Amino acid sequence: MSESPLPPLAEHLTARSTAAAMRVQQEALQAARDHLRSLGFQELLPPLIGPVTDPGGRGAKALDVDFYGHRYKMMTSAILYKQASLRGFPKLFYIAPNVRVEPAETAGTGRHLVEFHQIDVEVAGATRAGAMGVAESLLTHVVDHVWRAVPETLTELGRDRESFAELLAGPFDQVTHHDAVAGLRSVGHDQNPDGEIDWAGEELLSHKAERPFFITGYPKGSRGFYDREDPDNPGQLRNFDLIAHGGFGELVSGSEREADYATIVTRMRESGENPAKYAWYLRAAREGIPGSAGFGMGVERLTRFLTGLDALWQVSAYPKLPGVATP
Amino acid sequence: MSESPLPPLAEHLTARSTAAAMRVQQEALQAARDHLRSLGFQELLPPLIGPVTDPGGRGAKALDVDFYGHRYKMMTSAILYKQASLRGFPKLFYIAPNVRVEPAETAGTGRHLVEFHQIDVEVAGATRAGAMGVAESLLTHVVDHVWRAVPETLTELGRDRESFAELLAGPFDQVTHHDAVAGLRSVGHDQNPDGEIDWAGEELLSHKAERPFFITGYPKGSRGFYDREDPDNPGQLRNFDLIAHGGFGELVSGSEREADYATIVTRMRESGENPAKYAWYLRAAREGIPGSAGFGMGVERLTRFLTGLDALWQVSAYPKLPGVATP
Repeated sequence: MSESPLPPLAEHLTARSTAAAMRVQQEALQAARDHLRSLGFQELLPPLIGPVTDPGGRGAKALDVDFYGHRYKMMTSAILYKQASLRGFPKLFYIAPNVRVEPAETAGTGRHLVEFHQIDVEVAGATRAGAMGVAESLLTHVVDHVWRAVPETLTELGRDRESFAELLAGPFDQVTHHDAVAGLRSVGHDQNPDGEIDWAGEELLSHKAERPFFITGYPKGSRGFYDREDPDNPGQLRNFDLIAHGGFGELVSGSEREADYATIVTRMRESGENPAKYAWYLRAAREGIPGSAGFGMGVERLTRFLTGLDALWQVSAYPKLPGVATP
Repeated sequence: MSESPLPPLAEHLTARSTAAAMRVQQEALQAARDHLRSLGFQELLPPLIGPVTDPGGRGAKALDVDFYGHRYKMMTSAILYKQASLRGFPKLFYIAPNVRVEPAETAGTGRHLVEFHQIDVEVAGATRAGAMGVAESLLTHVVDHVWRAVPETLTELGRDRESFAELLAGPFDQVTHHDAVAGLRSVGHDQNPDGEIDWAGEELLSHKAERPFFITGYPKGSRGFYDREDPDNPGQLRNFDLIAHGGFGELVSGSEREADYATIVTRMRESGENPAKYAWYLRAAREGIPGSAGFGMGVERLTRFLTGLDALWQVSAYPKLPGVATP
């Protein structure tokens, strides 16, 4: 077990900043629901466990459970279920609870929680640009709403409305992964051109920006098999992250999705996944999953960005840190 | 594995009745949130796993997970966390996902899902009557709202507004567990006077009623250690169920809670629970958990009642039946 920065739960739950963060989070989720419903989205309650979950691309593991003698996993994300639901619900979202077992040494980063939530959005027939548009309008609407609903809470937390002015003025900038890497390397940051933007690099970019911005086209190895490869740029994905300004880093990850059965199987094999594990999902893909694009916006990351609090555990009512045994 | 009444997931998700049920559920949850927030409640996102969970009183089991070498459980309900949060959040609610491993032979009842959700409400300083008042106003508000928001969906499902007229006229009737048992026995139903009202008995009472009604004062052995024993009627709990009319059965279970440290330990021992397992909760109780009352309203049971559909799996997007291996 690691050294924990967490206070005891009773102390955390009675802290003034926790009450403030929960007020902001409640308003943010209401605004998100209102906005997505106004765009014609249907909210569903996502599954918690299943025979497979998102294998992801960043090394976090899923928790196993014994479902009547079958080894099931708690959802690290419900992406596969989003895709499989599009025929019945072409514009859908979840407020999805997820569990990811991160390495214990990440407990002190302030950026890792084992339990967290995502506003998980998917749109049948949409392109990457369409999903980016929804993410941008969603963030803008949420920021606008919380400043109308609980301005005194944000001010008490030390937030300044001015630091959101550029965000509200929009539109958000876009940079390709290729150009972001080149920019980082030009200022002496040794960013790997074939991988995720590392945290130091992301923080650098995030601090330099005046408003959130998109990074597009991450390399294939860095993300899950469901992110669609760009037919015009093999090796690049038609995906995106949305990075907050002010040093708060990634708020959203999204992509166009791969919907072609044979390509999904190939991508699974390339990323080291055994297609046999994904029987129900591949059956659905063979019967026809619509092409789509979508994203997940981290609820705790969003709340941290809105409140300006330092660590993700400060904006979770029941925080669980990697490797730290707490309630 | 049992015989499953479930269609394949792709078929379920494209069924007309599933789309209708999800529309109704979305409106019901919006109405619940609006109503509870108008009463001054704060919504929190509940924990999914922890060192202990609600041991319940009905034989369903929790799923174990390995949390960095510690044996944690998925929440069967987050009741203990609700209580522990009251000092910071005196009126709080969750829309809580829960997992209960029910016996495989319950797969065909139409009343059991392994994954389900509760509108989980708790009020510091409230009495049983106070919690019953919140449950009654919540159900009334939800019914009123869905009939305003999606009347054509309810009508298409075969629901008749007239069958909710008595509910909307209120107030709900109340009967003690003692009198409910006596009534059932007088019509020849062999109800055990010292236990839960069994399903056949509950169904009988539910069919006879014209509007939802409360049953109060269940015997001590039938519920968890956190339901407060009635000081005026030892052996009886200061708890309640809210039973829907029309054969839909229980929608809500609630109670005044035990807040006295020594009494909690005694009640744990009486119900066969090892107090050592509940270290963090007992520490919180020793430091002072406020007296409270609250309840859980089953989201899928509520949606079934609103839509009139037969089985709980029809009103869950991703149904999991006891003993049935499905996505």
